[in-house]
Amino acid sequence: MMLRQTAQNLGVRLTGAQRALPALVRTMGTRTEYDTFGPLEVPEDKLWGAQTQRSIQNFKIGGPTERMPEPVVRAFGVLKGAAAKVNMDLGALDPKVGDAVVRAAAEVAEGKLSDNFPLVVWQTGSGTQSNMNANEVIANRAIQLLGGQLGDKGVVHPNDHVNKGQSSNDTFPTVMHIAAVTEIYERLLPGLKHLHGALDAKAQEFAKIIKIGRTHTQDATPLTLGQEFGGYATQVEYGIQRVESALPRLCMLAQGGTAVGTGLNAKVGFAEKVAATVAEDTGLPFVTAPNKFEALAAHDAIVEMSGALNTVAVSLMKVANDIRFLGSGPRCGLGELQLPENEPGSSIMPGKVNPTQCEAMTMVCAQVMGNNVAISVGGSNGHFELNVFKPMLIKNLLHSVRLLGDASVSFTDNCVAGIKANEGRIAQLLHESLMLVTALNNKIGYDKAAAIAKKAHKEGSTLKQAALALGHCTEAEFEAWVRPEDMLGPK
Amino acid sequence: MMLRQTAQNLGVRLTGAQRALPALVRTMGTRTEYDTFGPLEVPEDKLWGAQTQRSIQNFKIGGPTERMPEPVVRAFGVLKGAAAKVNMDLGALDPKVGDAVVRAAAEVAEGKLSDNFPLVVWQTGSGTQSNMNANEVIANRAIQLLGGQLGDKGVVHPNDHVNKGQSSNDTFPTVMHIAAVTEIYERLLPGLKHLHGALDAKAQEFAKIIKIGRTHTQDATPLTLGQEFGGYATQVEYGIQRVESALPRLCMLAQGGTAVGTGLNAKVGFAEKVAATVAEDTGLPFVTAPNKFEALAAHDAIVEMSGALNTVAVSLMKVANDIRFLGSGPRCGLGELQLPENEPGSSIMPGKVNPTQCEAMTMVCAQVMGNNVAISVGGSNGHFELNVFKPMLIKNLLHSVRLLGDASVSFTDNCVAGIKANEGRIAQLLHESLMLVTALNNKIGYDKAAAIAKKAHKEGSTLKQAALALGHCTEAEFEAWVRPEDMLGPK
Amino acid sequence: MMLRQTAQNLGVRLTGAQRALPALVRTMGTRTEYDTFGPLEVPEDKLWGAQTQRSIQNFKIGGPTERMPEPVVRAFGVLKGAAAKVNMDLGALDPKVGDAVVRAAAEVAEGKLSDNFPLVVWQTGSGTQSNMNANEVIANRAIQLLGGQLGDKGVVHPNDHVNKGQSSNDTFPTVMHIAAVTEIYERLLPGLKHLHGALDAKAQEFAKIIKIGRTHTQDATPLTLGQEFGGYATQVEYGIQRVESALPRLCMLAQGGTAVGTGLNAKVGFAEKVAATVAEDTGLPFVTAPNKFEALAAHDAIVEMSGALNTVAVSLMKVANDIRFLGSGPRCGLGELQLPENEPGSSIMPGKVNPTQCEAMTMVCAQVMGNNVAISVGGSNGHFELNVFKPMLIKNLLHSVRLLGDASVSFTDNCVAGIKANEGRIAQLLHESLMLVTALNNKIGYDKAAAIAKKAHKEGSTLKQAALALGHCTEAEFEAWVRPEDMLGPK
Amino acid sequence: MMLRQTAQNLGVRLTGAQRALPALVRTMGTRTEYDTFGPLEVPEDKLWGAQTQRSIQNFKIGGPTERMPEPVVRAFGVLKGAAAKVNMDLGALDPKVGDAVVRAAAEVAEGKLSDNFPLVVWQTGSGTQSNMNANEVIANRAIQLLGGQLGDKGVVHPNDHVNKGQSSNDTFPTVMHIAAVTEIYERLLPGLKHLHGALDAKAQEFAKIIKIGRTHTQDATPLTLGQEFGGYATQVEYGIQRVESALPRLCMLAQGGTAVGTGLNAKVGFAEKVAATVAEDTGLPFVTAPNKFEALAAHDAIVEMSGALNTVAVSLMKVANDIRFLGSGPRCGLGELQLPENEPGSSIMPGKVNPTQCEAMTMVCAQVMGNNVAISVGGSNGHFELNVFKPMLIKNLLHSVRLLGDASVSFTDNCVAGIKANEGRIAQLLHESLMLVTALNNKIGYDKAAAIAKKAHKEGSTLKQAALALGHCTEAEFEAWVRPEDMLGPK
Repeated sequence: MMLRQTAQNLGVRLTGAQRALPALVRTMGTRTEYDTFGPLEVPEDKLWGAQTQRSIQNFKIGGPTERMPEPVVRAFGVLKGAAAKVNMDLGALDPKVGDAVVRAAAEVAEGKLSDNFPLVVWQTGSGTQSNMNANEVIANRAIQLLGGQLGDKGVVHPNDHVNKGQSSNDTFPTVMHIAAVTEIYERLLPGLKHLHGALDAKAQEFAKIIKIGRTHTQDATPLTLGQEFGGYATQVEYGIQRVESALPRLCMLAQGGTAVGTGLNAKVGFAEKVAATVAEDTGLPFVTAPNKFEALAAHDAIVEMSGALNTVAVSLMKVANDIRFLGSGPRCGLGELQLPENEPGSSIMPGKVNPTQCEAMTMVCAQVMGNNVAISVGGSNGHFELNVFKPMLIKNLLHSVRLLGDASVSFTDNCVAGIKANEGRIAQLLHESLMLVTALNNKIGYDKAAAIAKKAHKEGSTLKQAALALGHCTEAEFEAWVRPEDMLGPK
Repeated sequence: MMLRQTAQNLGVRLTGAQRALPALVRTMGTRTEYDTFGPLEVPEDKLWGAQTQRSIQNFKIGGPTERMPEPVVRAFGVLKGAAAKVNMDLGALDPKVGDAVVRAAAEVAEGKLSDNFPLVVWQTGSGTQSNMNANEVIANRAIQLLGGQLGDKGVVHPNDHVNKGQSSNDTFPTVMHIAAVTEIYERLLPGLKHLHGALDAKAQEFAKIIKIGRTHTQDATPLTLGQEFGGYATQVEYGIQRVESALPRLCMLAQGGTAVGTGLNAKVGFAEKVAATVAEDTGLPFVTAPNKFEALAAHDAIVEMSGALNTVAVSLMKVANDIRFLGSGPRCGLGELQLPENEPGSSIMPGKVNPTQCEAMTMVCAQVMGNNVAISVGGSNGHFELNVFKPMLIKNLLHSVRLLGDASVSFTDNCVAGIKANEGRIAQLLHESLMLVTALNNKIGYDKAAAIAKKAHKEGSTLKQAALALGHCTEAEFEAWVRPEDMLGPK
Repeated sequence: MMLRQTAQNLGVRLTGAQRALPALVRTMGTRTEYDTFGPLEVPEDKLWGAQTQRSIQNFKIGGPTERMPEPVVRAFGVLKGAAAKVNMDLGALDPKVGDAVVRAAAEVAEGKLSDNFPLVVWQTGSGTQSNMNANEVIANRAIQLLGGQLGDKGVVHPNDHVNKGQSSNDTFPTVMHIAAVTEIYERLLPGLKHLHGALDAKAQEFAKIIKIGRTHTQDATPLTLGQEFGGYATQVEYGIQRVESALPRLCMLAQGGTAVGTGLNAKVGFAEKVAATVAEDTGLPFVTAPNKFEALAAHDAIVEMSGALNTVAVSLMKVANDIRFLGSGPRCGLGELQLPENEPGSSIMPGKVNPTQCEAMTMVCAQVMGNNVAISVGGSNGHFELNVFKPMLIKNLLHSVRLLGDASVSFTDNCVAGIKANEGRIAQLLHESLMLVTALNNKIGYDKAAAIAKKAHKEGSTLKQAALALGHCTEAEFEAWVRPEDMLGPK
Repeated sequence: MMLRQTAQNLGVRLTGAQRALPALVRTMGTRTEYDTFGPLEVPEDKLWGAQTQRSIQNFKIGGPTERMPEPVVRAFGVLKGAAAKVNMDLGALDPKVGDAVVRAAAEVAEGKLSDNFPLVVWQTGSGTQSNMNANEVIANRAIQLLGGQLGDKGVVHPNDHVNKGQSSNDTFPTVMHIAAVTEIYERLLPGLKHLHGALDAKAQEFAKIIKIGRTHTQDATPLTLGQEFGGYATQVEYGIQRVESALPRLCMLAQGGTAVGTGLNAKVGFAEKVAATVAEDTGLPFVTAPNKFEALAAHDAIVEMSGALNTVAVSLMKVANDIRFLGSGPRCGLGELQLPENEPGSSIMPGKVNPTQCEAMTMVCAQVMGNNVAISVGGSNGHFELNVFKPMLIKNLLHSVRLLGDASVSFTDNCVAGIKANEGRIAQLLHESLMLVTALNNKIGYDKAAAIAKKAHKEGSTLKQAALALGHCTEAEFEAWVRPEDMLGPK
């Protein structure tokens, strides 16, 4: 069978590189795989089996971008390896088969076999088909490692060996948690900490730059630019805490609950040992879920973490919005910050720096807020012993995790780190402000101070000009009394 | 001026009782109050002043149901009393005035003056007008207590005395947190614990009732009804943990940040002392916010808590949904549970018990999920030194808190506590199920077991009938081998 | 029984006015009403019966602000009157009873009996209890009109007469639609049109004021302030179209479907005649729903309208946000608009006008966006022949309708109508902008134009200064070539 | 430079096929491209230029699944071709260059060059970089067609020729609308109509099957299965109307507004002619947007359409939920429907058919509801003359469109079309139901009917048994009177 036709059947779009292959390579054969429904042709060079192929054909929804996220695929590798080790420990799996399964699973965990996971998330809501995809690929790869014939279940069986003591209903929730926790530790928390560090550094760098405050978007009393960035840094710091405080329940693994939470067909101790093995293999603090019924029937831990991510998104939306407004201009905006110029803004307009990193970040935040609703809707709609929105839930959570993690790094490196204070502009706005008149209250009384401010506002003059014109103080007094640097804290 | 006309002007709908008042009482006068914009007539029998009245007239949005929630009003009483105490301690407030303010504030905190807070939440986004409402009412009430004339700011001044050392920008975030934390401790957590206790008790009560499990809404392997309710109890238990883990950041008070977070015009120590006083007066673990800029400009702590509530709503939606489906019938549904009959379902149809408490609960959950989005949108839209979605944010959070707390109690008392297992029906379904065939796998092999199940399914017979007909086991063997009570855990 | 105690039992908080009543009046008795569950005491002066009272006691969720919205109560009056008329027409109702029902229902429709509708929305999800509340109140009021004894169902029966040919399952969806359509016609559309008119008027008023454009919040090419307001006006204009295009399906009435959509127990023609009568009585284009099964089991028409309101909210959020930013200042913001000063911003800071109407509006928009999610969740969770999120759905829809309608009027009258262009500031920003250099491209070439812009940006000079310094054109040429008024449209 | 390293730098994961390429092919060179920021290496075999490459490096957010959706890429082909045609018509573009641009754009429109569009949506919020990606690819392809050297802007210039008379600010909104409308016409509406047809056919097929109705999930009066499916069909029918009624505003194209909506630098007539050309080339009813300011600054039309899709999702969630519950069983659920068996449910459990298509559909619906929130948040956050959430907005809208379209087809073909009524079970439940007692009311009176129902409920007997035991009617009478087929409509 020709690649093009196979590709068409599989709903796969050939890449340019693939189309550029010599005709020879294009000739791709198929082999026959079986499940309890009968035989089915699968691509010769792929390791998946009949149940995977059946899902490809039954769920033509959304195309390649909708595939099960790679962290889930890798987590299957982690889990299936751990299960095989525990099964061998418990004497439930022939070591020869078990070792091959462990090696094959390790390849999945490393991402080496990711091309063999073609299924989209819009499949059965328990993720059964992806569990079978993992079982089939690992079994076939183990067969290869043992020198057998692909598809020869007598050598390694997807169900009897790879899925031993497991059910889709407990493996899929387990890989959801493994994938999410791993991505959070490896991508999100480092990203947020990177951003926090940069904001905190800016808070130090700008500690002495006094600027006008703004409330209701209107001029208010002064603060330092460092204080402003310190607020942003605190938001991110708390965001990290929020994510961390949602982790304990996400580190609980459902494995061992099997079909409905009772653990029927699993061995006593399997649940605990698998969790311990996964924890050891990943270096992450996984434990077995105390209540397996909750762990299969609900995904509240996913919803909870999504709520934390939603809060982080809300924080970052504020920060990125502020930065773009403070950097607006160059002539007709606030102009207090100078953002790094990363790409041509306009060929005709020097000084026009579009805050593109802020824009990417705020778009990410809107997406995370939307994903949170998808997750909430899916999380609330479980029935009886099983929530069947699992693939959608984990897709959205991983999407939010990755976007926030990646965008934090991009925003930090391409924007925050390079922000410069436009000190001249900041000082000019500060000193033009009428709000500094507050400092005169204690010296000349409220009424005279108000009169100065009103006169300045009406005439468009400075406070000093108005003060001197009204004769309420001398220039020396004004200079001594109206000092923004004395307005930065309680007395 | 007549009541009816005043009422109309104020946008207040007269209650039947009010309309029933003797004509004499209806003659309600007004008095004149002032602010910097000039004089304004306010209802003679109300304690509010000109700024409150101005807001009534400028924000005719939504009617009486949209008023600032009472917990916020009471929190203003708590805060203003604490601030007066601290100001007296710091020597910043004349004790005679201060004591009167403390007494007046206590009345607000007790809810005695709630009728004097007519403003809707759809006002200035900083809650300034409600802060002034509190200042005006407390000042006027203190004037009364001191024997003065309402509106005589020479005796007690709303700004100079009641609002001393404060700004709307720090008082309103402070009362948001006081109100939310108080309601969570007094209403939500007790409600959830009440529900948890009832679910847990049912888990014990139903510990020995074996029933068919359901995954994908399809028949699956058995579990006990107690295990099923144990899953629900665990969901609620974790929900309580989720709320508690979001409390630390909600217990941080913004007070002391004044206008932009710097604390300008507040005394050193004011922030810490006010937080300590509020903590002492309420018995709740309030502390001063470490970063006041974050506390004014963002409301991430509100968003975070709303995320926890959203997760609780997702959990309760699942629980209430399951209960109504398990109680569906009486003849044509699942019929495993018998829900208490609280009101006429249908006059013609005995046994028809509508799961009305489940319906109220699931409606509440949908509302909380919506409120969470309103809060997220508002939380993400702060600018510079001040988020100006404050009244909307706290209205929604308090709405969610109250609904979840009240609904938990109602659902517990009027539904969960009275649930009875329909043991006959449960046993019937369990024993009709084909899924028990799983137990034969280890005895007669997979193929024969499958043949039994297929035959039974095809002919509509029981497993035992099919097994005996096929001769794969004796009746005694079947009875000995197919025992749901042995299918409830790992081996 | 004393009022205070009754009030406590009923969960009703006494108003100050009620507490101020002479002790005599406080003595409020009860009378006994019956339903199929038995007798129950209800307040003597109220018209509701036993089923209403039972709901009060079983659903203590949320307090008085959570009561069934008044437009629903009034719609019950409209519907019950129409049903009685049609039943009399069809010979199914004794005219003497029917006329009394029609008169009593009219009082409900006029809002005269609204105090007799104490139930909260968090009740049975079909709204059954509110339907019974309406039946009971109308029956008792009709009994009064006929000179009977309250509660004497022999005179007028809540079910047999007032609810004749109806079921809660079709009446409640019907009043949902009547209430929503009425409020949309009477409150929302007038509000939006009022706002549209004001924005359009400003677009005309500002048609000749040329200003700098801003994209990415950065300076861009010029447009007129009128064009900018014209964009806002267009958004509102389309918003009106969006609401109108969702109306047809909301004008379909479920009445006649009875319990499950089949119309069992209703007479042939009842559905059509009731819709026609409601249409005539309200003057609004109601029709009978072509498919009653859809009309009971789903509330997609509510979800659809909420989607239209969500879009309107999104539009108004943009408009209000722009206006507050364009009005930011007075010295340190954009300062192009001068917003009306409606209340004291700050006693010390003349010229500080907080954009409070923008803040109220944007809070409303966030709420509407949240309500839309609550509605979507509720709408998606119907089961079989009945969606049981009805009271929550209509509460949220009416909330959004009212808030958008009221806020549009408030925003128009207290903000938009009084906006003034700060022409001096606008001109200053326009002429300081570097973006006008675009006009030189066709005269002196891109490279020289860019050199001028770069020099001006670097030195902080004007374009003209830079151009003359570089000798690329004469002052006269510059004046002739760089004309913002020539940059406002295609050529 | 080696492919692997290049790939790593570009953040591209090699596919298995690519890794399998002979080493020779792996050696992939680069060429140098330029923009105003300077030179940059781009992959030799790609047509993009420096600005695209710069975006790849600056926005490492989310990986390949986050690329600009292909319908947007193709729409760029449509638009750029149309613009070139109009520019030639207007004499603004050399026909030799223009013809090459038209041919190159056609290849983009056909999807032949999609591999040359590597940018993710998390870029500048105006989509500028994707517009430049299109300009660069089309220019380079046109250069190839003219026999020039890639990157030689002297032959065809990305800005001066391909982007002539355009700005990112008007092209990107234009392609958003072209892509969305095209996908709606080609994928969504056909999918929904396909589903509607199947549901309608089932409504006909099941027209005579009488079944028990269910309200509140409880047994109610009967209806036909055809009536039930007719309700579903009506929901989808109205869904189609909803989408169609949102199309008019989505068919308005922003092209011609250029940078801020004024149309500066575009020729008079360009806007209208481009819209007409796009309409002709696509066969879809595009028109030029009457107000270009609205079309750039807001994306309300996207939000509106998303609201329609959200409503469709709400409908389909209900339908898919009902179908899975009606098909629940086989022994312990409702069991009224038999869903097609598409894949192994469980190897041990014949008859277990997991409703996997329902699960995929409900997951899709949850996603669409989440996407709607992301779109609403993004839509509400535009500022001044430009909304900068454009790529996120169109990604989410196209996601919803595609998922709903594809899932409708999959759900129809793999589920709805193959649904069979389990007539035995339906009849059994119907006749066991107590609700049919309603039919006796008119014959023997309410009290005797109620007594029959109560007795049957208490004893678990049938209505007939109870009726005969009580002697309230004869068997013949019972058979004559209790006829579900007479309970299906008004009388």
